[in-house]
Amino acid sequence: MNIRLTSDEIIPLREGEDLYSALKRAGIYLVASCGGKGTCGKCKVKVLEGKHEALSHGKLTVKEREAGLVLACRTVPREDVLVDIPKESRLVVGDKIALARTKNLVEYLSSYGVSINPPVKRVFLELPPPTISDNISDLERLKRALEERGLGNIRFSHGFVAGMAKTLREAGWKVELTYVPGSDLCGEAIFLTSPELCHRRYGVCVDIGTTTVVIYLVNLLTGEIVDVGSTYNSQMRYGDDVITRIVHATEGGGLHELRDAVVTDINTIVQSLMDRHDIISCEVDSATVAGNTTMSHIFWDMDPGSIREEPYIPTLNVFPLWKGGTARLSINPQAPVYTVPCIASYVGGDIVAGVLASKMHRDPEIALFMDIGTNGEIAIGNNEWLMTAACSAGPCFEGSGIRNGMRATAGAIEAVKIDPATCEPDIKVIGEGVPMGICGSGMIDAVSEMFLTGVIDLKGKFVAGKTERVRTGEDGPEFVFYQGDGHLHKDVVLTEVDIENLLRAKAAIYAGVTTLLGEVGFTLDAVEKVYIAGGFGNYINVERAITLGMLPDISKERFIFMGNTSITGAYLCLLSEELRREAEEIAAKMTYIELSVSRNFMDDYMSALFLPHTDLNQFPTVAELMKKTR
Amino acid sequence: MNIRLTSDEIIPLREGEDLYSALKRAGIYLVASCGGKGTCGKCKVKVLEGKHEALSHGKLTVKEREAGLVLACRTVPREDVLVDIPKESRLVVGDKIALARTKNLVEYLSSYGVSINPPVKRVFLELPPPTISDNISDLERLKRALEERGLGNIRFSHGFVAGMAKTLREAGWKVELTYVPGSDLCGEAIFLTSPELCHRRYGVCVDIGTTTVVIYLVNLLTGEIVDVGSTYNSQMRYGDDVITRIVHATEGGGLHELRDAVVTDINTIVQSLMDRHDIISCEVDSATVAGNTTMSHIFWDMDPGSIREEPYIPTLNVFPLWKGGTARLSINPQAPVYTVPCIASYVGGDIVAGVLASKMHRDPEIALFMDIGTNGEIAIGNNEWLMTAACSAGPCFEGSGIRNGMRATAGAIEAVKIDPATCEPDIKVIGEGVPMGICGSGMIDAVSEMFLTGVIDLKGKFVAGKTERVRTGEDGPEFVFYQGDGHLHKDVVLTEVDIENLLRAKAAIYAGVTTLLGEVGFTLDAVEKVYIAGGFGNYINVERAITLGMLPDISKERFIFMGNTSITGAYLCLLSEELRREAEEIAAKMTYIELSVSRNFMDDYMSALFLPHTDLNQFPTVAELMKKTR
Repeated sequence: MNIRLTSDEIIPLREGEDLYSALKRAGIYLVASCGGKGTCGKCKVKVLEGKHEALSHGKLTVKEREAGLVLACRTVPREDVLVDIPKESRLVVGDKIALARTKNLVEYLSSYGVSINPPVKRVFLELPPPTISDNISDLERLKRALEERGLGNIRFSHGFVAGMAKTLREAGWKVELTYVPGSDLCGEAIFLTSPELCHRRYGVCVDIGTTTVVIYLVNLLTGEIVDVGSTYNSQMRYGDDVITRIVHATEGGGLHELRDAVVTDINTIVQSLMDRHDIISCEVDSATVAGNTTMSHIFWDMDPGSIREEPYIPTLNVFPLWKGGTARLSINPQAPVYTVPCIASYVGGDIVAGVLASKMHRDPEIALFMDIGTNGEIAIGNNEWLMTAACSAGPCFEGSGIRNGMRATAGAIEAVKIDPATCEPDIKVIGEGVPMGICGSGMIDAVSEMFLTGVIDLKGKFVAGKTERVRTGEDGPEFVFYQGDGHLHKDVVLTEVDIENLLRAKAAIYAGVTTLLGEVGFTLDAVEKVYIAGGFGNYINVERAITLGMLPDISKERFIFMGNTSITGAYLCLLSEELRREAEEIAAKMTYIELSVSRNFMDDYMSALFLPHTDLNQFPTVAELMKKTR
Repeated sequence: MNIRLTSDEIIPLREGEDLYSALKRAGIYLVASCGGKGTCGKCKVKVLEGKHEALSHGKLTVKEREAGLVLACRTVPREDVLVDIPKESRLVVGDKIALARTKNLVEYLSSYGVSINPPVKRVFLELPPPTISDNISDLERLKRALEERGLGNIRFSHGFVAGMAKTLREAGWKVELTYVPGSDLCGEAIFLTSPELCHRRYGVCVDIGTTTVVIYLVNLLTGEIVDVGSTYNSQMRYGDDVITRIVHATEGGGLHELRDAVVTDINTIVQSLMDRHDIISCEVDSATVAGNTTMSHIFWDMDPGSIREEPYIPTLNVFPLWKGGTARLSINPQAPVYTVPCIASYVGGDIVAGVLASKMHRDPEIALFMDIGTNGEIAIGNNEWLMTAACSAGPCFEGSGIRNGMRATAGAIEAVKIDPATCEPDIKVIGEGVPMGICGSGMIDAVSEMFLTGVIDLKGKFVAGKTERVRTGEDGPEFVFYQGDGHLHKDVVLTEVDIENLLRAKAAIYAGVTTLLGEVGFTLDAVEKVYIAGGFGNYINVERAITLGMLPDISKERFIFMGNTSITGAYLCLLSEELRREAEEIAAKMTYIELSVSRNFMDDYMSALFLPHTDLNQFPTVAELMKKTR
């Protein structure tokens, strides 16, 4: 018997085996905080064809059951089945491509000229066993040994002391103490272990995106990335963007739901990574998280309510070093969790991590940093000054709010060319199968090509009678990129409403850049480098993005694609004390400009709502192209 | 309808009222952590006569039910009833005599030349409300205001920050911050409140005795004692002395049972005191506890196991400032709880508190401090040096291990005279009713009188044919002090086994004193003052205790009765930072002598097992008396 997935993968199935186990065996991990026991209700899948038996429905809602969802861990196929795995159920663990991309991070870390220096330290202590004549208490004995090592100023929590006596005796008074060293605040003892147990040291760094969660499991001694994992942020079920999440958080119990959702995602990945590498939870003794301000608040179970109310004040930007147990992470409960500091309500730790990863804060030349993810934040500056703003671009480049929008995963149209003569599209699909939707880079290509071929005008409206690819759909006119079979394979289109959304998003980003430059009296000429962050930056075609009027019309060589800089920054902070200090300096130094109350921004935004821009002087190469093609 | 108690008090009863409520109305509080809801199973009483209905039995064991115990809060009398309240069910709240005794403590505190300075401080902060141009986060805003007051180095816990945003807004940015100031360790924010709410400030100091728990509720601004409460330590059901408690603690789950028992006792008293004075829990923002090392460990849920195993090592002597919530106290969960530091496994914070309360550590003259409670600890020294030892005297002076032994409460024989001619006893009973037993001071009187009248010999054995008051009972020969009616009023006797126990106890105490003096090369002549601590010290007759050979034979004027010095020391530590430092200095300075491995102690103990002592030269006034009376 086999499981066939809608992505056309075939997975062999053993007699009587449940879907969750069979998929796991094949390296396809589902979100399941209960480990496949039927209790968490997260490993939802849909069996489209084939007889199967659902042993129980756990926490599935009536609505979910009516929609045909079953729990993979409680569902046993009785014949070949066709299964659809909703994106939010899927966990990506040990992704070889993603892992390969991290190969040079140890080298990159050393390029900063810093040494490996995680938030916690260990010290081996051999204590003299107590005798009648040396009968000080266990804690005094430990303190005495620490003072001999110059570690006098360390606090001891109740939890630490409660377990100490047993460990000291079991370990024969030869112990390893893990502690957070004191700097501006005083140090703290974290845990005590015999050198035989729990001797390896790992850390996790987490990028909490509004849409995805990415985790690196790191060897803390070498800096090497042991494995990676990612999944969709399960908070998505409560809304796509930060605003709807904040609204949900302020409704009774909503905050805890959102927190539980993302912490479960993180724990499921971390647990899978630990299982794959035979790591026990006490060995994971440090963590760093980077996320936007709302995600950071929700992760720590802090009400983000005031973030969306004028004057847009977060509860905190610089997070104290709280514990893994407090965050409910399934790592060592005493492990300190470092949160990359945020700057303001809409510019978070992901941007600080990104600036840190770009090194622009160390460089004298002026650089622009753009993170075009779910929201759209930019930073500009150099080693002397830094400014930042949030553009409220919305998550359309991640596929949200776009009829057939999807993330850049298998089945997404990632590139489009349109024949100027016939207006017929030539599409490239990730994974080369049947297209299931269109991702950010595909949309940018599509709109700029439609513009250059005259399918749409400079306002983004379809030009009548240009091609039969344009038809009238539910939402009005739409361009058909792929004609499905009306059954399993649906059509993939881009509607006029989609294009309007894209124009608003690109206008917000571009106007953000010009407004910020205007604040410091610079123009785009001053910008030496443009760092593009965000998952979709890897696939973007710069020329098309310039044609769209999203990226500034400067030399292509100045654009540097950084990929996920949030996780890179979190990685750097996990391993280096100096870089944690640098992240804090970036956050302290960065001037935040509130665009929502900026007159200049509104003007710039209105001008940027056209293709590529009202002021063609700002887009000389596009003007050139337009002359050629139209 | 009425309730009659075995102590002969009459309490009016309303129709349909339960025993718990009726007793409470009359100011008789029972231990009931559930507040009289039938769930905690602690308000056990015995209805000896009268029809009554037990609505439920809650957590009562089968054994307890078979013994005729009912829950007072679930038992409704249907006619006049006679009720016996076991001592462990009884809570003494608002005891006027005890409260009167504390009247001069504020004055006593000021005699130390220190100012009132509790572990937590409050500061009023008026923050500028955030605006678009002053849009730092809430925590940064708070930190900025604190830095302006010179309070930069303060930690913020997750719990503090989680509630902060709401409080700031509800209080209109005018708040009172309670914090633990940083000294050697860094400071910590405790909680935030509007100045309208929770503005009064109280603290509790707790003496955790092996037998009793005593609590003072203190006004932190004036030092005034608002009320007092006490009860028997419910741990008594697991054994009378510290050793049996430690044994129980090391058996599966025993530690938590013991902790729950004493914390419930404390919380029941604290709750009753708060109720009586309309105080809400957030207003009780500091606590200090003093107890012996085992009690301190159990209070903090720390395994005391190694205390009783050679080389007798406690987990810790100096306790960090942990939280009320960690201790599960029903006060402000963020309130710091100061534990008076301990010295060694068998000399605890109660002794440090006692030395602090005696001021002997400030005085150049050599003094002896004796706490003859459940165990028997002594300290000797002055402002230059201090030594201490535990004598393992056992709890017999508190009535334990003595056939008709009881604490010094209503019904106890507290004084005895024996007519030298007739050998007839003349007894004095606390409360002047029918005697129900004999307490420590009564026993000391009885044995010294029996010795001086020749009823017993110098080994404590009854002299045959001396008086018909001596009969043969279950345990052998016994002296009958009170002949009961064989029904409700039982006989009160002192057996030869009881006398043996008393001799062992007094020998241990006296030998402890001489051994300690011997260690520093002094004799009793050097001792200028003897401070007697412990509840029973108040009633003791010094001359009789000297006759017994328990107290050294020095001038009566040198003896100073201090009462419960453990609670006095806890009170001093609650109110003064300087005195908390002094307590720590006392603990650090005190040399502990382990008597159980001391050759000299064994010799001294053997010599002291006689009445008054083998060496009559040490007891010249007793030798004189013996000449006169025998």
